[in-house]
Amino acid sequence: MARWEPDAESRFRAAAIELFAEVGYEQTTVAAIAERAGLTARTFFRHFADKREVLFNGSENLQRLMVDALAQAPAAAPALEAVAAALVKAGDFFDRDRRHYARQRHAVIEANAELRERELIKLATLSAALARALRQRGIAEPEASLAAETGIAVFRIAFAQWVGKSERRGYVEIVNDSLARLRALTAD
Amino acid sequence: MARWEPDAESRFRAAAIELFAEVGYEQTTVAAIAERAGLTARTFFRHFADKREVLFNGSENLQRLMVDALAQAPAAAPALEAVAAALVKAGDFFDRDRRHYARQRHAVIEANAELRERELIKLATLSAALARALRQRGIAEPEASLAAETGIAVFRIAFAQWVGKSERRGYVEIVNDSLARLRALTAD
Repeated sequence: MARWEPDAESRFRAAAIELFAEVGYEQTTVAAIAERAGLTARTFFRHFADKREVLFNGSENLQRLMVDALAQAPAAAPALEAVAAALVKAGDFFDRDRRHYARQRHAVIEANAELRERELIKLATLSAALARALRQRGIAEPEASLAAETGIAVFRIAFAQWVGKSERRGYVEIVNDSLARLRALTAD
Repeated sequence: MARWEPDAESRFRAAAIELFAEVGYEQTTVAAIAERAGLTARTFFRHFADKREVLFNGSENLQRLMVDALAQAPAAAPALEAVAAALVKAGDFFDRDRRHYARQRHAVIEANAELRERELIKLATLSAALARALRQRGIAEPEASLAAETGIAVFRIAFAQWVGKSERRGYVEIVNDSLARLRALTAD
């Protein structure tokens, strides 16, 4: 039946984020999301396990993108440079088209403790994946975990700026700026 | 009645950590903790909201200790140096006497998803408190949050080493080593 719903996932996502913003995350039902999207709840559950996953099911793609970029960094690149390659590559994901959605999503997550926890877990999972990819490049512990965690610190700060209301710079410009600030902070 | 239970909190804590290790966190009841401690469940609830808080109620003290150390760092200290003062000060908390308990606690938390989430939230709260203290020292954003998050990255790695089975160095030595490694990583 999927041939009649070519873009069901993005329709559900747009409908969900509208409703989360309008009536709140907790008050929004899957039935309401499906109705707003002009699709059925049955179809919703073919795409998402629950309404929370509408906000988080992209994270596996992001993680794969970042881990691959880290793995493909030049063999001679030091640990933090390989991590930087992963952070910059995330710009393919956080592009201009995604920014409006990312801002709405960020506002929904910030307003809900359960969603903030879920976001923290996703970031911890991403950090562990980057550390594993660094070890596969021959970086020993504790450097691998330290470089990965530091990279996640930069990522969090850059991402929070990117979704900020008055921020006009693109994600890649911000993340490069944050990396430069990190180097300045640690050189003081 | 507290005069008959001068060290009730530490007795509950010791009993709880034993039971969490022996029969698992989920399977342990407050009644069993109280029995093992030779105290009553009623007394337990005068000290802790629930069994989870046995593992986490020290975090406010740790946070206060660290924030105060950051605030008291020399006025001329750069952001990361003030954060380093906070990380080193945590050594008053993570002393030799606490290490055995900290190792047991770490094993319990690692084995339970809900507890791992709780630990992530506590670290995010600590990071936000350090960033706030940096802003009060006149450090602007995004440097304040970046320095705080980077400090938490160092703290996580150092703490994980300190509770490692074969690790013999003290917490302060490890955290200073991690800070040196961070500076080396970012100087590459």
